[in-house]
Amino acid sequence: MTCPDPADLMQPFSVDIDLQQGLMPNAASHLTRHASDMRGHYADTDALARLIDSGDPLHYEVFEVPVPAQAGQWMYCISTLQPGRVGDEFFMTKGHYHTLAETAEIYLCLRGEGYMLMKTAGGQCAWQAMTRGKMVYVPPYWAHRSVNTHEGEPLVSFCVYPGDAGHNYGNIEREGFPRRVFLRGGEIVIE
Amino acid sequence: MTCPDPADLMQPFSVDIDLQQGLMPNAASHLTRHASDMRGHYADTDALARLIDSGDPLHYEVFEVPVPAQAGQWMYCISTLQPGRVGDEFFMTKGHYHTLAETAEIYLCLRGEGYMLMKTAGGQCAWQAMTRGKMVYVPPYWAHRSVNTHEGEPLVSFCVYPGDAGHNYGNIEREGFPRRVFLRGGEIVIE
Repeated sequence: MTCPDPADLMQPFSVDIDLQQGLMPNAASHLTRHASDMRGHYADTDALARLIDSGDPLHYEVFEVPVPAQAGQWMYCISTLQPGRVGDEFFMTKGHYHTLAETAEIYLCLRGEGYMLMKTAGGQCAWQAMTRGKMVYVPPYWAHRSVNTHEGEPLVSFCVYPGDAGHNYGNIEREGFPRRVFLRGGEIVIE
Repeated sequence: MTCPDPADLMQPFSVDIDLQQGLMPNAASHLTRHASDMRGHYADTDALARLIDSGDPLHYEVFEVPVPAQAGQWMYCISTLQPGRVGDEFFMTKGHYHTLAETAEIYLCLRGEGYMLMKTAGGQCAWQAMTRGKMVYVPPYWAHRSVNTHEGEPLVSFCVYPGDAGHNYGNIEREGFPRRVFLRGGEIVIE
């Protein structure tokens, strides 16, 4: 087994995660998306405009401690998606492909209830339920977005993806996801 | 973005995990290591022999649902290490390098207390405490072994590593880890 010079070796480290609240207190990167960051994503644009006018609430947060963006390294994050609706449509993340489309991503749901919506560039569509203890495997080539269908709790997930995978938000924003998740007459429906 | 033929695409799936008990009820692969599988790993060989004679208790379990062993895919597992000691030395896993040594691994500790012991082929040594909510990053080129220092609870971790990483148990078995974790006069010590 060959090994780099000891001086070049990356050193082990650890990161504290609040698994219940979905926080990474010492995260080096803390991305927040509010309602105003989600223009173009919801079916009911008027409802989104009203939500933005009435305080522009937080949609979701992503906490990361970046590692080198290289093959062989893993990026990991905590994703915390708030409960709420835009009109009848449940709060969701923007969703993305990976820039290296041939890379998978793992989501371990730690709290809450919802769905992972997925689609391929070729038009295939799939979804998986997310609840505490459910690990969703997003295979290579699938764009993915999470949706929080709980009335009051955040959807908290631990995510792992390759260090060099990158995020491609543009393609899926142009294509859109073929399914949306709504509350219709008290029922959660995927349309 | 190029994409394989739809018929060749891997489909998304999900796996149920008992985050508290450290079980994966529908795991396709369930590896168990008993005391008798751990010969050569503990300092006190007589104590290990007595433990084997007195019922050969379970040391640890690893639950997996394998994915294709390819770059871009992730293997993930639940590792559940029982509490106990061999003489004064706390129960631990065998430890391994990756066959593709340049690949990292992520451990998210879900329950229990212990340490991740790590070493490089060049002789560097490191450790990180493991407690609920602690994510330990094992960088490329580091062999790694977990140790359960709790008196009564299992050490439960969710692990992610590359689909093509592979396990190299032989090198670290020949080299040994330079540090061991003991209970000495009621104190946990790393020697």
